[in-house]
Amino acid sequence: MTRLQTAVVLCGVLLMAHPALAADISGNYIAQVTTSPTAEQQYARVTLKADGTIVTGTWGDRKITGSLAGATVTLTLTEATGGPGGGSAGALKGTVSGTSLAGDGTLATAAGGGPNGTGGPGAAAAGPVAVTWTLTPYAPPAAPKTYDFEPTSFYTTYSAIWEPVLRIYPGDTVRTRTVDNDRDAKATRYGVGGNPSTGPFYVEGALPGDTLVVRLNKVRANKKTARQGGRINARAINAGYLVGAKYDPAVTGEWTLDLEKGVATLTNPTGSLKGLTVPIKTMLGCVSVAPPGMEQMRGTDLGVFGGNLDYNDNVEGTTLYFPVFHAGALFGIGDAHAAQGDGELTGSALETSADVEFTVEVIKGDIYQQVRAETKDYLIAFGVSGSVHESIQASTTLLVEWLKKDYQMTDSEVALFVGAVMKYDIAELVDPHINVVAKAPKAALAHLKR
Amino acid sequence: MTRLQTAVVLCGVLLMAHPALAADISGNYIAQVTTSPTAEQQYARVTLKADGTIVTGTWGDRKITGSLAGATVTLTLTEATGGPGGGSAGALKGTVSGTSLAGDGTLATAAGGGPNGTGGPGAAAAGPVAVTWTLTPYAPPAAPKTYDFEPTSFYTTYSAIWEPVLRIYPGDTVRTRTVDNDRDAKATRYGVGGNPSTGPFYVEGALPGDTLVVRLNKVRANKKTARQGGRINARAINAGYLVGAKYDPAVTGEWTLDLEKGVATLTNPTGSLKGLTVPIKTMLGCVSVAPPGMEQMRGTDLGVFGGNLDYNDNVEGTTLYFPVFHAGALFGIGDAHAAQGDGELTGSALETSADVEFTVEVIKGDIYQQVRAETKDYLIAFGVSGSVHESIQASTTLLVEWLKKDYQMTDSEVALFVGAVMKYDIAELVDPHINVVAKAPKAALAHLKR
Repeated sequence: MTRLQTAVVLCGVLLMAHPALAADISGNYIAQVTTSPTAEQQYARVTLKADGTIVTGTWGDRKITGSLAGATVTLTLTEATGGPGGGSAGALKGTVSGTSLAGDGTLATAAGGGPNGTGGPGAAAAGPVAVTWTLTPYAPPAAPKTYDFEPTSFYTTYSAIWEPVLRIYPGDTVRTRTVDNDRDAKATRYGVGGNPSTGPFYVEGALPGDTLVVRLNKVRANKKTARQGGRINARAINAGYLVGAKYDPAVTGEWTLDLEKGVATLTNPTGSLKGLTVPIKTMLGCVSVAPPGMEQMRGTDLGVFGGNLDYNDNVEGTTLYFPVFHAGALFGIGDAHAAQGDGELTGSALETSADVEFTVEVIKGDIYQQVRAETKDYLIAFGVSGSVHESIQASTTLLVEWLKKDYQMTDSEVALFVGAVMKYDIAELVDPHINVVAKAPKAALAHLKR
Repeated sequence: MTRLQTAVVLCGVLLMAHPALAADISGNYIAQVTTSPTAEQQYARVTLKADGTIVTGTWGDRKITGSLAGATVTLTLTEATGGPGGGSAGALKGTVSGTSLAGDGTLATAAGGGPNGTGGPGAAAAGPVAVTWTLTPYAPPAAPKTYDFEPTSFYTTYSAIWEPVLRIYPGDTVRTRTVDNDRDAKATRYGVGGNPSTGPFYVEGALPGDTLVVRLNKVRANKKTARQGGRINARAINAGYLVGAKYDPAVTGEWTLDLEKGVATLTNPTGSLKGLTVPIKTMLGCVSVAPPGMEQMRGTDLGVFGGNLDYNDNVEGTTLYFPVFHAGALFGIGDAHAAQGDGELTGSALETSADVEFTVEVIKGDIYQQVRAETKDYLIAFGVSGSVHESIQASTTLLVEWLKKDYQMTDSEVALFVGAVMKYDIAELVDPHINVVAKAPKAALAHLKR
């Protein structure tokens, strides 16, 4: 045995003999809690502090007391605010393994949902249930990173089942690209159907009940052509018009994009369209996180998770706010349009591909019912529903709740505000669901602190 | 008998003896034709040329041959294009009385409607029916006039029954004012209910089947206050929100208008609304012609005739285009708002009174299904219907028909155009009918001749 070998063995003995050294479990974790194989996973932010054999910390809103003996950890959770059963909220036992911990025990259902301690509106706290759990370290890098990500696969259904293509942290930036809906078919597609999305990107630390913030730093068409549908969708116009409409096969929706001048012109314009120039304003038709639970929707659909929102102000400079339904959020982008009228009347707009750069952030424990956005000039609330009228009601309600919460408006105040200055956009009229935007001019909020 | 008396008698004898001098009927007329006491009046533009006893001219699209004997006129109408019965379209007999003519006879029903020769789509020409008729001279002044009109009465239902307050000609300009909906109650109101309109103004020569053009040269709030509703209308927001909403009686929708600075501030702002300033953009909530036939709607309603359209771009500089349903069009204005969000969510916007100047024109024999407008930047089609979705379809259809007709777009071309650049506004969401605007950016039409 060399002296070096001796030293190594000695270290090993020392580590085994001193459990506190063997498993310094102090740090931040994400707890994942399972109540049954069919129930959704629950999550909580956990902080542990080990001082010798004594463990203290927090589990969501709850307080931890416990002990560490060798690799065995025993944790008792109590409600920070007291509560039923003298504030007892759980009894967990587990084992340290590498940088993670796992075990089982009982947890009281937190107010508002599962045993995750993240709170939220809804059901009151209830008695303890049997759980298994893991704690995974949450250790973001000291400084944000920028990734150049070349996609090789694309998902065409919105779902939590797709494996993340990249794991990033809040503050990180991704430079990547989207593919054209039907014409860039080389890459692997997950799912069938149109609107392939780049991603999903897993945002470490984004938990159900959070808001994912995505700043679109760059959204630029990256090729010289776009293709548009050639007929007005039956949803958008009177049936009487459609009966008499005469379509000319010589009129094609092929566009040429002059990326330097920033204008689109028809490649083979006819009659009245000769000389038509349309400013290029590249937008992302699809911006999504994974939808709630086990839902899975095709790429043309849209909902509370975003998806094919087809809003022509989801462009460079816009910031998006998504409700997070799954750990990591599972963000993705696709369906770039070089330009699009309101409602996407022709079913497909000036479909193209784009270079995109975005930066993610997470707002913890704060969730709204649907996707929101923000431009230089407006706060934007999306309302996705089965009819135009319900979508209007959904978007109005979301904007009103946002103004009440972030700008401390009362119901009476918010009524005067929206009645005087609010605006609507009809974003998407011809997809499986309809998307209406309610938006508040930021100029009218300039006197307020957020 | 003096020499003068002798000369007068002589002149009288000469006039009686020379019918062509007694009734020089050459000139332009508006024909009003009645088929039965319950049928709508029919109108046509008529030109007569009398040469001795021979009369020629036109009656709408039809050709006149006839004769004048004393005060008795006999007219035969033939279809300009030939047609059934060897082109015979009517036989009329009447009497000259002062500057007008009146009589009876038979007229074939013109293609597209009644016996007025104005044509239009619809029914084919049919056999002759018994009619009575009048011809009223149409003699516009050599130069347009400007009227300063001080209103003393206001109508609160849209209807052809209200007597015109002023008769003007195409090209004429009117300077007048609107009154505040509920607070300027001194003047006489015709009808009951809200939204009193100034007018109706009778535009000489505007006939059913024409388009009335109204340029809003000036629309300016003219007092220092406005009043707004304090609750969001149930149409615009989720029922769940309304159930929980708490209204504060201390929050009033009283606004102070700084007309010099062009901003509105709440008179007694609370909490989050302290410091809120809203740019004044005075709009006319009500712009109307008399609705079709015997329809009569309250002042809060809207339809194909306009009425309470509540569009926040019906402002100074906007030009309005109305289908004309009654002779004279019977135009009126009211319901000025110092500002209004889309949809008028609080039921009433910043209600005030305004000084208004407008100029009228008539486009002959050209009619669209609903009201249209034009701003510096957009062609605007209003779609008024019973649901948001139908209003969208109505406005899209109207804009598409407009683009096809005035810009010679084919169905294929107009599809690409609207899919790429068309926009929607939700103008009115909480009134008896709903108003959605479809609009085409004029920049995208700059390459085309109208």
